Amino acid sequence: MFQTEHTPRSERVALHRVRIRDDFWSYYIGLVKDVVVPYQWEALNDRVETAEPSGAVRNFRIAAGLEQGDFYGLVFQDSDLAKWLEAVAYLLEADANPQLEEIADGLIDVIALAQGEDGYLNTYFTLKEPDKRWTNLTECHELYCAGHMIEAGVAYYRATGKRKLLDVVSQLADYIDGVFGTKPDQLPGYDGHQEIELALVKLYEATGEERYLRLSRYFLDQRGQQPNFFQEELRRRGGKSHWPGNGDRIDLAYHQAHLPVREQETAVGHAVRLMYMLAGMADVAALTGDGAMLEACRKLWDNIAGKQMYITGGVGSMPQGEAFSFDYDLPNDTVYAETCASIGLIFFAQRMLRISPESKYADVMERALYNTVVGGMARDGKHFFYVNPLEVDPKACGGANHKFDHIKPVRQEWFGCACCPPNVARLLASLGEYIYTVQDDTVYAHLYIGGEAELNVGGRAVKLVQTTEYPWDGTVRMEVQPEEDGRFTLALRLPEWCPKAALTVAGEAVAVEDEGRIQDGYIRLERQWRPGDVVELKLAMPVTRMHSHPLVRANAGKVALQRGPLVYCLEQADNGEHLHELVLPQASELSAEREDGPLGRIVTVRAKAVRVSERGWSGGLYSPSAQPSEQPAALKFIPYYAWANRGEGEMTVWVRER
Amino acid sequence: MFQTEHTPRSERVALHRVRIRDDFWSYYIGLVKDVVVPYQWEALNDRVETAEPSGAVRNFRIAAGLEQGDFYGLVFQDSDLAKWLEAVAYLLEADANPQLEEIADGLIDVIALAQGEDGYLNTYFTLKEPDKRWTNLTECHELYCAGHMIEAGVAYYRATGKRKLLDVVSQLADYIDGVFGTKPDQLPGYDGHQEIELALVKLYEATGEERYLRLSRYFLDQRGQQPNFFQEELRRRGGKSHWPGNGDRIDLAYHQAHLPVREQETAVGHAVRLMYMLAGMADVAALTGDGAMLEACRKLWDNIAGKQMYITGGVGSMPQGEAFSFDYDLPNDTVYAETCASIGLIFFAQRMLRISPESKYADVMERALYNTVVGGMARDGKHFFYVNPLEVDPKACGGANHKFDHIKPVRQEWFGCACCPPNVARLLASLGEYIYTVQDDTVYAHLYIGGEAELNVGGRAVKLVQTTEYPWDGTVRMEVQPEEDGRFTLALRLPEWCPKAALTVAGEAVAVEDEGRIQDGYIRLERQWRPGDVVELKLAMPVTRMHSHPLVRANAGKVALQRGPLVYCLEQADNGEHLHELVLPQASELSAEREDGPLGRIVTVRAKAVRVSERGWSGGLYSPSAQPSEQPAALKFIPYYAWANRGEGEMTVWVRER
Repeated sequence: MFQTEHTPRSERVALHRVRIRDDFWSYYIGLVKDVVVPYQWEALNDRVETAEPSGAVRNFRIAAGLEQGDFYGLVFQDSDLAKWLEAVAYLLEADANPQLEEIADGLIDVIALAQGEDGYLNTYFTLKEPDKRWTNLTECHELYCAGHMIEAGVAYYRATGKRKLLDVVSQLADYIDGVFGTKPDQLPGYDGHQEIELALVKLYEATGEERYLRLSRYFLDQRGQQPNFFQEELRRRGGKSHWPGNGDRIDLAYHQAHLPVREQETAVGHAVRLMYMLAGMADVAALTGDGAMLEACRKLWDNIAGKQMYITGGVGSMPQGEAFSFDYDLPNDTVYAETCASIGLIFFAQRMLRISPESKYADVMERALYNTVVGGMARDGKHFFYVNPLEVDPKACGGANHKFDHIKPVRQEWFGCACCPPNVARLLASLGEYIYTVQDDTVYAHLYIGGEAELNVGGRAVKLVQTTEYPWDGTVRMEVQPEEDGRFTLALRLPEWCPKAALTVAGEAVAVEDEGRIQDGYIRLERQWRPGDVVELKLAMPVTRMHSHPLVRANAGKVALQRGPLVYCLEQADNGEHLHELVLPQASELSAEREDGPLGRIVTVRAKAVRVSERGWSGGLYSPSAQPSEQPAALKFIPYYAWANRGEGEMTVWVRER
Repeated sequence: MFQTEHTPRSERVALHRVRIRDDFWSYYIGLVKDVVVPYQWEALNDRVETAEPSGAVRNFRIAAGLEQGDFYGLVFQDSDLAKWLEAVAYLLEADANPQLEEIADGLIDVIALAQGEDGYLNTYFTLKEPDKRWTNLTECHELYCAGHMIEAGVAYYRATGKRKLLDVVSQLADYIDGVFGTKPDQLPGYDGHQEIELALVKLYEATGEERYLRLSRYFLDQRGQQPNFFQEELRRRGGKSHWPGNGDRIDLAYHQAHLPVREQETAVGHAVRLMYMLAGMADVAALTGDGAMLEACRKLWDNIAGKQMYITGGVGSMPQGEAFSFDYDLPNDTVYAETCASIGLIFFAQRMLRISPESKYADVMERALYNTVVGGMARDGKHFFYVNPLEVDPKACGGANHKFDHIKPVRQEWFGCACCPPNVARLLASLGEYIYTVQDDTVYAHLYIGGEAELNVGGRAVKLVQTTEYPWDGTVRMEVQPEEDGRFTLALRLPEWCPKAALTVAGEAVAVEDEGRIQDGYIRLERQWRPGDVVELKLAMPVTRMHSHPLVRANAGKVALQRGPLVYCLEQADNGEHLHELVLPQASELSAEREDGPLGRIVTVRAKAVRVSERGWSGGLYSPSAQPSEQPAALKFIPYYAWANRGEGEMTVWVRER
């Protein structure tokens, strides 16, 4: 079925082969293991009193015949459970945990009982609308839920070697493969929320069954074709909507179903859906050698990263539809920037890196990871942001101006639609997948995270031991341990934020600027490596003034600070209220300081600035003569990810400059 | 019933006694007479093919038994017709127009036939839900529609002396007076949309029947009392809503029913409702000597004008609820600033001026009139703005970013909810009411508009002939023609925008700065006036840089230009796109020029500025090193009211300054 010449693609690195030991990340991964996953298990079981009930476990128990009751929650409630299970699988893949595995095994037994004879698996439709299967793909997330369960099944199989859930999801996928397609007795449809596309690729890789890859490509190929499936489906169900208020109009662009996927050039619609779709497209393009699909991935990447992404790696400029808006439209206050969308962006970046290791993908991956994703979770592991604004005034939230109704000035405990917390958990639990890729005899280091990796580099076992205080310090030490002496290449990413790098290999200086040394943003070290060779990379990490492209209206005349991968922000807790009054002169010195406090051991940035304030203002609301007064102000910036951990207050990333 | 000592209150000046002959306003009033009123008549009769049908006339004909059919339109469709009829009355009060009067008489015959035996008059409930009268005051505008019809009836009686419609609305008011009240068999309610309060005061003044004033005060007194009528009513109708999507929750603040009216201190909720309520409160306070109610008016005035009003005199910062948001929250792009709300603000200002002539009321009245209200109508009289933004990017409208869905970048022909066009018509047709007030033996000139007025100043007939090229030039010539020599005071408003005024009276210079000459913002000329005395007031009218109070986040670092009462703006048609790139240095000279062109004979303002642009930008979306390039830019500002008359394009009032 597929073209013979296809793009080479790096293999996934198993998590037990990449052990993270890192001051920064070990905390978060420990949090996922010790707090997030146990806490979410309680939440999924409706045992967290202060949070909205989930119903997710109970729905499966009811569908399995183990309990009486009604379905509770949103139509896609199953996916919360699947994402949690996937996170658990990643934890187990890294480290044995018999107690957790027992819980998971028990849950998988319930899931298996909840599956229909024909392979169908979805508690909403099974319990609530059994005769309405596949009648509202547009709105009801049936294939989306299936996709998440497939991801969980694959991850659990990889982690434990246990096939039970893999068999369940294979049966489910086989059943779906029969239902969907372009044959006369099939439904020529696809899901309103993309997800199954990337999941089927994983299932293909885990099972070797090519039909799953073919089914994934079918879903992508069919999307946006005419006559439009969603419109036909709407007609068939008489214009009725699952969601009150959706009405009888379908916004095809919201679902990225306005055009065939290969013809899409601009990011539109629901951000998470697009990200998941693009991850799936990159997978399918690589595995089938589909140049046109890969080209669409590249174009959409460039549009997103070049015109529609926040400096924090957030995507989705508007709450309506949780969606992209248009090029250079990046409002900081009414932004959406869902945590899940940045996670999806990381998925997409990782796929692109596996196809073509160019640092632009890793730069964005790092930006999203160190800012929006880690900022999406509180340091207690129990509170989460769904929306990640870059400018907040709590006075404006909570109904004061309804355009901010979606903005929460502090992280919330759990959500009625709880997609983000388990998504953060599964990403952090699988962070080891994102650090390295290997292509032929080159090993690429994309992220600087301490720990040990055992890699297969062109058939040769190579152990890498990375030590770093990143993101606080730009020094990275890497010990290279091939099983024996051998020639291969170590390619180290030179981050876009780094103005100057110095390098020693086995104690000898290597000129980074040598002809051909840097390719696609990676410093290539091709040599005969000996066990114990040490590479020391010193990435200069100054505090940097960042400016936006001048067409970004929201940031005109403003500056943001960045140091290493971390974007900084001002908070009221450090700088008082009315942050819009602060102006940072171009000449101000920016000094970074290591600080230990309630936000952990972080680097803060201090600068002298000016407050243009209402103090002594003699005019009314508008004045021809009154001038605001100016006072000196000592600013303190903290990393963006750490905001809102000290109660409600104003926050801003972009600051007026002069 | 009322306290004996009440605030003195200026009498209304009849429109045939204030003839406007003014370069600026005669055009608009002519437009109302020759285009707007005839065009709206066509629209109300569903004869404008390119506009949405109205149904308003037909609804009355059906209710009158003259036609078969169903009610069409919104629940408050009747009010469009009433407002149109009121505008017609004002035109007839100023100038005879037998043809127009015949149309109006015919319409009034239909209205009279549509009235029930008991006095009830409302085509929606009569035709569509006859058994549901007074069951949903919260949402269904029954008393609001009654109020508008009462205003029309009073205006038509004053204009023509014909009592037919006055009798109809008196019967209607008598019926309402029986239904509503705090007696056991009465409904202790009030309307969701205030309007009847001010209308009943007019009916009291036209008929001398004190029960109408008492009923008006009842509605105000009852509002916001506990138990809350709207919540009780909602309970009685089983939580059902007239408007799909309203749900079963009532936002009491939206209706200004969250507190008794005398306890309200901050403007909240639907802006038009608040303005109409305040106009009624000022009326009732003045006529009943209610000090607490007057104090609430003053507090709310200060809150609105001091913290919640746009520089254009627009009010209502958010589209959700067409409502006020909170102090200093004045976003220029997502603004609502409904034309009707500024008209309501003018109504309120006029009431306050009749009670206490302080220039702060007239300054705001002038600001709203010359900017938002006149800007609400196109120069063809056939296109209208409902929402009046201060910053528009057409690329962002029409769904590109849904927060701008309410923003139209050009004026629209007619609206499904067509409140604004007839409101503009009735205000402009009655503009003569707003120019002067007389209190004791002082005549106050609030607005500088050319024409003749015949006034009763302390029992003495005084004719004033005003000649001016305002708002383009600040010279105002006023010929004073008392019937005979006499001592009285002419008080001329010194506008807040004017830095320097010079004055001659009968050829002799008068020092404006003399001790006590200026009181409450008016230059008082108390003297023995002789027929033919000429006052010449020269108001310096420089182009002025306006700054906002520093707590207005949206305008931090920005400047707006104003000249006389006119606020200026930049349009793409003159300045190219990407207006956010333009920066106006503080030192730039601002030169005003008279120009004749497609916008009429206007004064434009030119300035040298800088464009901080994307030209040659070497970075990506965010860059640590790339600097925007700067090019000189020659700016051209036009009066705000004239924007969007040359097709779609960007516009901004506030411009970056340095």
